[in-house]
Amino acid sequence: MGGKPVTVGFVGVGRWANVLAEAVQRSNQLTVGGCYARSSERREEFAQKYGCRAFPSLEALLEDPGIEAVVVVTPNNAHAEVIEAAAAHGKPVFVEKPIANTLADAVRIKRACEKAKIPLAVGHSARRLKGIRRIKAMLDSGDLGDLVLVETNFSNDRAWDLKPGQWRFYRDENPGGPLIQLGVHHVDTLHYLGGPIDRVQAFVKRLYTPAEVEDVAAVICEFSRGPLAYIGSAWVTPGVFWVRVYGTKTVATYSLDFRWWARANLADRHSQLVVEDPGKANPEEVPLEQGDMFVEELEDFAQVVRMGGKPEVGLEEGIAVVAVAEAALRSAQTGQVQPVQPLFREFGVQ
Amino acid sequence: MGGKPVTVGFVGVGRWANVLAEAVQRSNQLTVGGCYARSSERREEFAQKYGCRAFPSLEALLEDPGIEAVVVVTPNNAHAEVIEAAAAHGKPVFVEKPIANTLADAVRIKRACEKAKIPLAVGHSARRLKGIRRIKAMLDSGDLGDLVLVETNFSNDRAWDLKPGQWRFYRDENPGGPLIQLGVHHVDTLHYLGGPIDRVQAFVKRLYTPAEVEDVAAVICEFSRGPLAYIGSAWVTPGVFWVRVYGTKTVATYSLDFRWWARANLADRHSQLVVEDPGKANPEEVPLEQGDMFVEELEDFAQVVRMGGKPEVGLEEGIAVVAVAEAALRSAQTGQVQPVQPLFREFGVQ
Repeated sequence: MGGKPVTVGFVGVGRWANVLAEAVQRSNQLTVGGCYARSSERREEFAQKYGCRAFPSLEALLEDPGIEAVVVVTPNNAHAEVIEAAAAHGKPVFVEKPIANTLADAVRIKRACEKAKIPLAVGHSARRLKGIRRIKAMLDSGDLGDLVLVETNFSNDRAWDLKPGQWRFYRDENPGGPLIQLGVHHVDTLHYLGGPIDRVQAFVKRLYTPAEVEDVAAVICEFSRGPLAYIGSAWVTPGVFWVRVYGTKTVATYSLDFRWWARANLADRHSQLVVEDPGKANPEEVPLEQGDMFVEELEDFAQVVRMGGKPEVGLEEGIAVVAVAEAALRSAQTGQVQPVQPLFREFGVQ
Repeated sequence: MGGKPVTVGFVGVGRWANVLAEAVQRSNQLTVGGCYARSSERREEFAQKYGCRAFPSLEALLEDPGIEAVVVVTPNNAHAEVIEAAAAHGKPVFVEKPIANTLADAVRIKRACEKAKIPLAVGHSARRLKGIRRIKAMLDSGDLGDLVLVETNFSNDRAWDLKPGQWRFYRDENPGGPLIQLGVHHVDTLHYLGGPIDRVQAFVKRLYTPAEVEDVAAVICEFSRGPLAYIGSAWVTPGVFWVRVYGTKTVATYSLDFRWWARANLADRHSQLVVEDPGKANPEEVPLEQGDMFVEELEDFAQVVRMGGKPEVGLEEGIAVVAVAEAALRSAQTGQVQPVQPLFREFGVQ
């Protein structure tokens, strides 16, 4: 890109804010200029760690002319409020996935951004993993044949440690548990690989976590263009991340060693893409170069801030993901297949 | 077992009859004594190949006192009629999976067998694969922890070659396509690993096959004891067979190189069982001994014929599988979650 790096202010200073701030440090296109969190102790700690200013209020951060854009890493159910404030100050927003917990909140965000004419990018980073990029290229080139079925799973064991008082503990603040926290990554990847999703069925339930939130989800989807998809997500098992794409010509299986998920500059090296080749004796491993999905999504955002245009994963993509998650939760509640389109209409998105 | 081998007569002489007849030849507990198929040419060929008598009619085969039991390898929708005839002659039955295409047929079979007091075994061989046996042992011993989620897929490319006139071509004769042909194996494996299934949701549809039958299915299930499961099955992709079991302690992934599926005496050697060990750097491959799932299921049957008792996969297990498949098809048609129990009541099974 060249030119002066975009100075971003972090709203939220938790674990994931650190992951993204480290990604900012790996880039010469962005720099951490400030942070805000309710706890003065924690924001001071973050400010010291990343050499930035700790602002005493969200308002102060947003008003500061040195902060060009904000990175929103608050609990999901605070996204709408923070983004409305950022929009009111004309500050572009990068928000960690999901854009919001609910379509109602997502629509608030959409209206605020459109009214203020600010760009918004959503941190659905998974589509940037080199193995996923490669699968997309294989679909586009025809090497996979026509798309038949996509299967995905993103699980980890975080629900064991949930404590009362943490937002992730509660069903209201974290509806769907692993589905809205982990599974949503795959929803975006499904959209990326197969296009819009028409209909959803799901079981989402609590099995073992001491929290009140759900800890396992199984979702099946029908793409508008016909093929089917599955998303599994559990919160009480060892971490796994994988995607399997069935084409009429071959089957491609991607898996990422979950322990490297948060270290995006090493994650591709700890990934594997294997393609079944019916003509050969054994599946073939496809070599993957090392990228950095967090740096790439942040630089895509910085580019939009500087030069305009649309981020790869913006409002539309972020809202489409929440609609599928909400459709899954409805299906789990009603026991009926949930079409996605009526939800958009219900919430006035389209 | 010892003693004289059980002399079986094959009803049906197609591809799978050959697979099972070869398995009989690998065993000293059974022997092929005869066969019947409508085509005199094809039954003579089979008789010559396996050194047995070609009977001119089903009746003649069933009446022959030298034929102690029958192996039914006809099209699925002929199972009920053939088994009723076998039962009328008091001949024990081994029937290839599924026991029938429909619960209505499965109930006919159940009534006939119970009335005649003949044993019946169903060829759900997949649970006998060494990797599946090992996963079951890990569940029973607690090494996997509590069961959270099971994911499975059995797919191949057979729907490309379907021709009008073949029973598999038609939706009526082959409802659900890959689900009733391939996915049912995993339904039995799910029952084996996780117990009865309460509720089912599914998409089952035709995408690309020139036949009228469906060619892709995505099914999600809820076990009575709580955990969830997924079954994927396509008929227009390269062959794959895999099972992934998520426990609270670890995740076990089993896969079989599909090209070895029909060669059961080599299949385990072409399988892989990998267990994630969160405490270690890399997933661990569990060595598997070589078994022979087809010989083992046939010898289990032979043992029941000689000594009484119940086969591991009998009437009850076979019917439970069809009920889940039928629930999946209903869900795909109605767009509603389909509980399994009402189907049993509807068809008078319980």
